[in-house]
Amino acid sequence: MKRRIALISTGGTIEKTYDELRGVLSNQVSVLDIMLASLELRGVDVDRVQLMNKDSLEMSPEDHTLIAETAGRLAATHDGVVVVHGTDRLAVSGDRVVALIGTPASPIVFTGAMRPWELRASDALQNLTEALLAVQLVPPGVYVAMHSQVLQFPGVIKDLERRTFVKAGDGP
Amino acid sequence: MKRRIALISTGGTIEKTYDELRGVLSNQVSVLDIMLASLELRGVDVDRVQLMNKDSLEMSPEDHTLIAETAGRLAATHDGVVVVHGTDRLAVSGDRVVALIGTPASPIVFTGAMRPWELRASDALQNLTEALLAVQLVPPGVYVAMHSQVLQFPGVIKDLERRTFVKAGDGP
Amino acid sequence: MKRRIALISTGGTIEKTYDELRGVLSNQVSVLDIMLASLELRGVDVDRVQLMNKDSLEMSPEDHTLIAETAGRLAATHDGVVVVHGTDRLAVSGDRVVALIGTPASPIVFTGAMRPWELRASDALQNLTEALLAVQLVPPGVYVAMHSQVLQFPGVIKDLERRTFVKAGDGP
Amino acid sequence: MKRRIALISTGGTIEKTYDELRGVLSNQVSVLDIMLASLELRGVDVDRVQLMNKDSLEMSPEDHTLIAETAGRLAATHDGVVVVHGTDRLAVSGDRVVALIGTPASPIVFTGAMRPWELRASDALQNLTEALLAVQLVPPGVYVAMHSQVLQFPGVIKDLERRTFVKAGDGP
Repeated sequence: MKRRIALISTGGTIEKTYDELRGVLSNQVSVLDIMLASLELRGVDVDRVQLMNKDSLEMSPEDHTLIAETAGRLAATHDGVVVVHGTDRLAVSGDRVVALIGTPASPIVFTGAMRPWELRASDALQNLTEALLAVQLVPPGVYVAMHSQVLQFPGVIKDLERRTFVKAGDGP
Repeated sequence: MKRRIALISTGGTIEKTYDELRGVLSNQVSVLDIMLASLELRGVDVDRVQLMNKDSLEMSPEDHTLIAETAGRLAATHDGVVVVHGTDRLAVSGDRVVALIGTPASPIVFTGAMRPWELRASDALQNLTEALLAVQLVPPGVYVAMHSQVLQFPGVIKDLERRTFVKAGDGP
Repeated sequence: MKRRIALISTGGTIEKTYDELRGVLSNQVSVLDIMLASLELRGVDVDRVQLMNKDSLEMSPEDHTLIAETAGRLAATHDGVVVVHGTDRLAVSGDRVVALIGTPASPIVFTGAMRPWELRASDALQNLTEALLAVQLVPPGVYVAMHSQVLQFPGVIKDLERRTFVKAGDGP
Repeated sequence: MKRRIALISTGGTIEKTYDELRGVLSNQVSVLDIMLASLELRGVDVDRVQLMNKDSLEMSPEDHTLIAETAGRLAATHDGVVVVHGTDRLAVSGDRVVALIGTPASPIVFTGAMRPWELRASDALQNLTEALLAVQLVPPGVYVAMHSQVLQFPGVIKDLERRTFVKAGDGP
């Protein structure tokens, strides 16, 4: 039987697209639908929730709270929730869910990317694939799934040097 | 801490490459290493085991037994085993593991593809990504991971019409 | 001012697509429109003419004559003609144009591919790009454009070993 | 017989790569060799000349003169010259060649891209393919080849709105 998953998009590197006139990558349109169309999704039905489209460095405290509350609310009506989020402040939103809700009614899995999907070599599709699978397999809780690794909040931080997420205190 | 995973390749559509002279797709060289190089694998260390490179329609009963015994043996020395296999006879090898070993010492996850990795639009990378993640999250047992779905043996069959795997008896 | 080009498709490797059920590459649907949509074409307006969709090894003498006559006729009403053709018998059609028409009213440029467009690594887009540019730059005549090379008929043959076209008599 | 072509790289959007730490596209390493390796080049032998790696908006008058003089000098020792250049100031360098040299000894063909090669959807490979073919087919002179169009200097300008090059005075 298919699981019903809510997919919340908030922006971040994963969704950045190229602006030919200005020559920069920015958060303008959502590429999540294109990514979803390129995957074979037999185990899940996905409800898309476009909450915001921001570089997470520009998120306000209210943004993090809105993301946490939305994820928690949807966890009660779905079999799981995936949140696509900029990696720079992903851990802030993850910690906010734990602080506000504790253990959600179903798993909440954050993901993002170090390189935009628009790039030929990108981790975006890998990470989205992993989040959509992890949300089916882990017990209720708050997680990040990226780079063939699932880590549980609290205590998850972005390791800038290694360009991925780690548990606080973990050595290389 | 990284998990140590054995990755057994046996061939199948996922590894088929194009022969310019004959104009056909066949199992000649392994493309798994190219696929692995395109993924960010932070949670696993992968030991590659090239067991055979066959279209599974050409596998003998001895081939299936060899695959099952190799997977079972490696499950005892690793944190998990992924087996890349042609989809046509994947379920035969999966059932063989259960028949010979019952519950292995660590999870054994089969995967494959409906379309060769060499094709621009292929499910190969999605399925390999999923198998490498699922093997970290499921309890010891025998599974197939493909198309955003993880199914446990026994009782898994290939549904030709829907072009994916299903549990025997499941409706669409 | 834009040139008006007729683009005749006849099939061949370049247009082969993958049949999941049978596991083979064959000429079923035309992928030329997808290829055209991925190019920026500022110098040409393209009229699509879907003449046939055949592996050229299966072309009859009548097929070659039909291709030659159609190309010659369209050369009189356009600024140039591009013919997408299987490479195995491409030279037969090229020689047929010269035999039937001599020098056409505008350039006729054949092209094809050694590897189907559906493959991740394919020469299809390169060759189509080259044919659409060459047809704007060469004087009236019959040519093949492929692999960064433009050769004029008659006297063009496929070199199986080097997997490209050469002028008869040319050494490596 | 193969033509010997000099390929001068100067940077520009076509060669921009993604910096994960800063999250921006910039000119750091040359991707031209990767692009060349993906093409089948039967008609040309390419001599690579890495002159500079700059966004053309940052080129000084001396840079334009250096590019023009280098191209003119190499045109005398090769069968043609291709110059990869940022599009914003490409026409400045093209006009500089005409001003300093008039008609070069062999064709000089400029090209560039509106979207970096690193992007999944990019005009970079199309434009490089076209420049490498055009340089074999046009008479000695100075040109830009891009977007299935070859235009001769002087009188070529970048049309920002249409995102391509046009002859000055040409309507849409």
